[in-house]
Parts: sequence; structure tokens; C-alpha cells
Amino acid sequence: MSEDLKDYLDKTAEQVDMMLERYFSDAFGELYKASAHLLLAGGKRLRPAVLLLAAEAVRPGSSDDLMHAAIGLEMTHTFTLIHDDIMDGDATRRGAPTVHVKWDEPTAILAGDVLYAKAFEFITHAVADDRARVKAVAMLARTCAEICEGQHQDMAFEKAEKEVDAFEYLEMAGKKTGALYAASAAIGGVLAGGNAVQVDALYQYGMNAGIAFQIQDDLIDFIAPPEKSGKDRGSDLREGKQTLIAITAREKGLNLSKYRRPDLTPEEVDRAIAELKEAGVVDAVRRVAEEKVATAKHALTVLPECKERQHLEDLVEFFISRSF
Amino acid sequence: MSEDLKDYLDKTAEQVDMMLERYFSDAFGELYKASAHLLLAGGKRLRPAVLLLAAEAVRPGSSDDLMHAAIGLEMTHTFTLIHDDIMDGDATRRGAPTVHVKWDEPTAILAGDVLYAKAFEFITHAVADDRARVKAVAMLARTCAEICEGQHQDMAFEKAEKEVDAFEYLEMAGKKTGALYAASAAIGGVLAGGNAVQVDALYQYGMNAGIAFQIQDDLIDFIAPPEKSGKDRGSDLREGKQTLIAITAREKGLNLSKYRRPDLTPEEVDRAIAELKEAGVVDAVRRVAEEKVATAKHALTVLPECKERQHLEDLVEFFISRSF
Repeated sequence: MSEDLKDYLDKTAEQVDMMLERYFSDAFGELYKASAHLLLAGGKRLRPAVLLLAAEAVRPGSSDDLMHAAIGLEMTHTFTLIHDDIMDGDATRRGAPTVHVKWDEPTAILAGDVLYAKAFEFITHAVADDRARVKAVAMLARTCAEICEGQHQDMAFEKAEKEVDAFEYLEMAGKKTGALYAASAAIGGVLAGGNAVQVDALYQYGMNAGIAFQIQDDLIDFIAPPEKSGKDRGSDLREGKQTLIAITAREKGLNLSKYRRPDLTPEEVDRAIAELKEAGVVDAVRRVAEEKVATAKHALTVLPECKERQHLEDLVEFFISRSF
Repeated sequence: MSEDLKDYLDKTAEQVDMMLERYFSDAFGELYKASAHLLLAGGKRLRPAVLLLAAEAVRPGSSDDLMHAAIGLEMTHTFTLIHDDIMDGDATRRGAPTVHVKWDEPTAILAGDVLYAKAFEFITHAVADDRARVKAVAMLARTCAEICEGQHQDMAFEKAEKEVDAFEYLEMAGKKTGALYAASAAIGGVLAGGNAVQVDALYQYGMNAGIAFQIQDDLIDFIAPPEKSGKDRGSDLREGKQTLIAITAREKGLNLSKYRRPDLTPEEVDRAIAELKEAGVVDAVRRVAEEKVATAKHALTVLPECKERQHLEDLVEFFISRSF
């Protein structure tokens, strides 16, 4: 990542953190504490950054008016994480106990529901044209429904007796991860007064960027050392998860089911990786992610050349080079 | 209830049912089926009716443009029921299995989340001034957060070691039930182009009406025969629930804890009712509800006299005379 982009992301994350702290630090009562728990536990604040960069690329200076909307996107992301953690039965996230573990399931459902409401409220606080704000709300609403569809599909994959193909995987990743990046970019564009062509291009940018992000997540699970990724290396393999890697492996005739064991050793994970590299699976999956990145960057060509557009391009490159 | 109001409510419910059927009948996939399940299982559609009546009272003819918004309020109500049923562990509602029983908990969380999104989307579909639509969205968002607060408070009451007082009870009822009626009326008013005084009056109407509705719910549990209420008579008593009746009884020095037994007989419920009537508890609770109704009706005096204002007045009278 360029130093310049890194500075921008750090600065934005700091602003987001500060606003969230201010809003939630004197949160009254357990419910708001539960809503704030994961929100204040850090995170890269990438969706707010995408919203602000998109706005700035469309109309310089516009991002100052859109911090609330940017925060709204982070709240949306966090509400989905709180609810997903309940559904997936996950006990920790970002190094802290999940909300339903620290409190209980009913409180976690409500804590997510509160952030869901706040997300929409914060979008309405954007200093922008009224029609643009209505459009932004409609976009966020459609996106939230899509995220639910994506999560539902993902859960169905786990149970599925039938084999998932790459098309279905990419559809799921588009809904579960792509849609919110798409909405972040497009909402930034629409609130900044962008025209339909610009807003659509930003949507395509975010969608493709998000899918690439998701694919990279799957690669990280295999390849990155746990101290970097914060995850248990090879956990997807161990659980037989239907990732693009697993799907591509199957399509190339590889049988990964022998690795589907909770007691898989690091050596066996290494052997699996070697096997997947040998068969060209890792390269093929990387190519899909690179293709998404190229599409995302190409979409931005309708925007004027500027520093922020460059940042958006660099950001999506970072999405597939990161190891955490 | 007047025949005229009854006709209006029947006609509105029919329109709401028809629109929901059209939208969800060819719902694709299990997630949307789960979202539609409770929504299509009937219901009195009172919140859409309140929204449409409020709009019509502010500007005759406006309600035709607001069916989508009205449906949005019904979706909001239904999403809260789906999530509440999970939290409360209830297995049936409206004579049908609840969503988390018919499907599973993860699907029920998502099914509620989908309706939550659709509610906001439908508000944006209102044919109304852009600024009014932004206000309507902001109102709904604040209301959703309040409903969560109310449900959280209600759950806390169940566990509470400390005794709940009437003030806390009314605060909870205002958030859990009043807020959505308040939003229904106020959103109808704002989308119809009402001024701030009118919109505020409609909000007060709905808030007081909703609290009266909730108090009547508690009375019904005691007094109505189960074939009318669809509930097990005296269930609140049996469970020692902190209703306004229980709180008022305690404040009058009555000890209801002897009735807090799962094996309470109908004769014992009768004895409890006699005891509560004797001590003036039932009358005192009814007076609170009647006071709320009077306040609700008084708020409407800023609106022009018309058939719809009369309907709103009659409706809130019905709220505290109904036995189901």
C-alpha cells in the first residue's frame, strides 16, 4: 500500500473512531453498551473510507459533509457481524468476546437491531440534497436485504448436500461482501451529487472490490501465518468449507475431503497447500481475484483523475495483497 | 366500534393483504418464505390504517400515494415480532408456528433483518416530497431503536430483582408499543405534507394510543375468555409478569405472589380477579388507559374535523374496549 493511502486510511479510521467514541462512550444502559462493544473494538473502517473517497472523487470537498453517512456504513457492517456471530456460534472477534457471549443472545439480537436503526438514522444526517438522501437510504435498504440473502446462502452452503459451483460462490460473495462495498462507494457518489453514470460506476467498483476482498479472505485462511491473520491457518480446509479454493480444487479433480479433519497438523496443511499449488488451484483463484480488481479499477475511469480515485485504485490492489 | 370504522379497517386490511401477497407470493427461496410467513398470517393491520388515516386527515386524497409507506410500518411491526419470538422463546403466534420454530433461529434472525430492510425501502417508495421522505425515514429509524430499548427493558423487568414502578412500566410500554403507533401517525402526517404542529400532534396521538393498547393487552390477559383473546387466561399472573396490574396491586398492598404458580386453576384466577377488583386495582388501571385515550383524542383537535379524524378517535376507543 502507498504511504499516502496508508496515511489517508489511518486518518479516516481515527476520525471514525473519534466520532463513534463521542456518540457511544456515555452510552446509557446495557443495550447501548452491547451495541457499542464491537463497534468500538477497532476495525479498519474501510467502508467509511470508500464512501468518503468516492464522494471526494465526484466532488472535491464533499466528504466533510458525509462523516455521518460514512459512520452509518460502519454501523451497518457491525450489525451484520453481531448477527452473523450469533448464527455461526462464534465466540470471539477482533480479539474480544462476541456480543452474544459477553451478554446473551437476546441482547445481541437487539444490539444488532439498534445499530441497524442507527445506520439509517445516520444516513439521513448527511448534509446533502434531499433527493440524494432518499436514494442513499433506498440503496442501503436494498443492500441490507442482499447481505441477508448472502449470509443465508453461505449458511446453506455449509449444509448443502449438493456441490456449490463457482458461479454460486461468486453470487454469495457479491451479496455477503460485495454489496456493502458497492453501497459504500455508490452512496458516497450519490450524496456528493454524482450523476447516474458515476454512481453506477462506483457501485461496480465496490461490488468487484468486495468480491476480490472475500476471495482474498479465503486465500489468507490457507496461506497467512496465524499471527498475521488472527485466524487458525487452514480452518476452512479443516471444516470442509465451500470456498472458491475448495470449489476450484474439486473442478480440477482434487479430493480435499481427506483434509476435512479437526486434528489436521500444520504439516498436513502445508501438504494440502503444496497439492493445491501444484494443481494450479491457488493461481486460478488468484486470477479470479485479479480479474475482479481489474474490473473494479476499470469502472473508475469515468471519474476525473484525482488523488482520491488513485486511492480507490490502490485500495482494491491492497484488498488482494493483504495478509490480514 | 362504529360500522363505518369497521368497514374502513376491513377494507384497508384487505388492501394491505393484497399488496403483501403480490409482493411475497412468488417469494423465491426459503429466506423470503420465512420473511413472509408471519406477515401473510393475517393481523389487524392497525398501523397501516393509522398511517393512512393520519395522512388523509392532514390532506384529503393523500393516502392513495402512501400504501407503500403503510406496508413499511406493517413490515417493521412484523420484524419486531419475529425477533421478539426468538428472544421470548415463543412457539406460536397468530395460530401458526413462529419463524424460528418452523425454520430455525439463524433463518429467523435473517428473516426479521430482511423485513427491517424492506420497511425502509418501502418508506422511500412513498409518493411524497423528498424532504418529507427523509424525515419519515429518520422517524422510523429512531422508532426502531426505541422499540429495541422497550423490548430490552421488558426483558429486564422479567429478570429484575428490584420492583418495577408504574413510571418505568409506562416508559417501557411507550417504547415497545407506543413508539410504532406514534411513528405510524406522524409518518402519515409528514408524508401528506402536514406542518410541524400537526405532525407532533399525530405523534402524541399514536404514542398515547399505543400505551393504552398495551395496558388493554394486560387487562385482556386477566379478564377475556381465552376463546376470544387467543391467550391462556391469567398467564401473566401465573408467570408473575410485571404488568401495570401487578404493579398497581403491589402499590395497593396486595400480594399476588401466591398466584405465581404454573398450576393455577381457573377458580384461582377468578379469585385473583375478585381480589383485584375489590381493591380497586382493575378500576385504577382502566383509569390510566382512559386517561391515555383522552390525551390521544385531545391531541387530534389541531386537525380539521373530518371523517378520518373521527375514525382515529374511534380507533383509540376501540383499543381499550376490545377483548382480543
